[in-house]
Amino acid sequence: MARATAHPNHQLISSDDVQGTEVYGAGNKNVGEIDHLIIDKMTGRVAYAVMSFGGFMGLGHSHYPIPWSALSYDKSLGGFRTNITEQQLKDAPQFSDDSWNDRDWETKTHQHYRAPTYWAGM
Amino acid sequence: MARATAHPNHQLISSDDVQGTEVYGAGNKNVGEIDHLIIDKMTGRVAYAVMSFGGFMGLGHSHYPIPWSALSYDKSLGGFRTNITEQQLKDAPQFSDDSWNDRDWETKTHQHYRAPTYWAGM
Repeated sequence: MARATAHPNHQLISSDDVQGTEVYGAGNKNVGEIDHLIIDKMTGRVAYAVMSFGGFMGLGHSHYPIPWSALSYDKSLGGFRTNITEQQLKDAPQFSDDSWNDRDWETKTHQHYRAPTYWAGM
Repeated sequence: MARATAHPNHQLISSDDVQGTEVYGAGNKNVGEIDHLIIDKMTGRVAYAVMSFGGFMGLGHSHYPIPWSALSYDKSLGGFRTNITEQQLKDAPQFSDDSWNDRDWETKTHQHYRAPTYWAGM
């Protein structure tokens, strides 16, 4: 039995390999990459991708949590697409370590990015 | 804005922090730990946990992919519970790097562990 790793071209990917996956914005412009994922351990759903946005200049922070539903995987690009803008990132609800346990922050953040919540339909 | 990491006591957890989460079997016996997760990048669902089973002796391999639905998070233990047995691991469908792209292997593996598939209801 080989050590279990997932080929990046497959639909299944190792959580180790998600790190560094590219993210593309309008006009297929590379805007950043995924640093790590935030997972709901009860349901096994990915809730957020924590991204670094090298492609957007002038941002105050290096890492931003983005609702998973604001990303879609594009096989032809080999990365994720998003419609979020630099202005949305700048205007996003303030984040702290307590935010992960704060449903109010989570709701506001999903509304801000106009992204369906990961707990919808539960 | 702090760097985005998830506190282990919260329902949301960083993919970085999942590594090393303990897994408990019958009688709350510690049977192993999670090495990494395998994620369906289209849907954002965790499909498998790749586990190492230090608590079961005599296993031929160090890492085994376990359907996510065969694990349940137990807040009081601070880890995952599973009902799978050493014998089930020994008898599990052979695994290779191609298995992640092999729905037949995936179906057999879920049946073997009597675990609901992550693609059910899709």
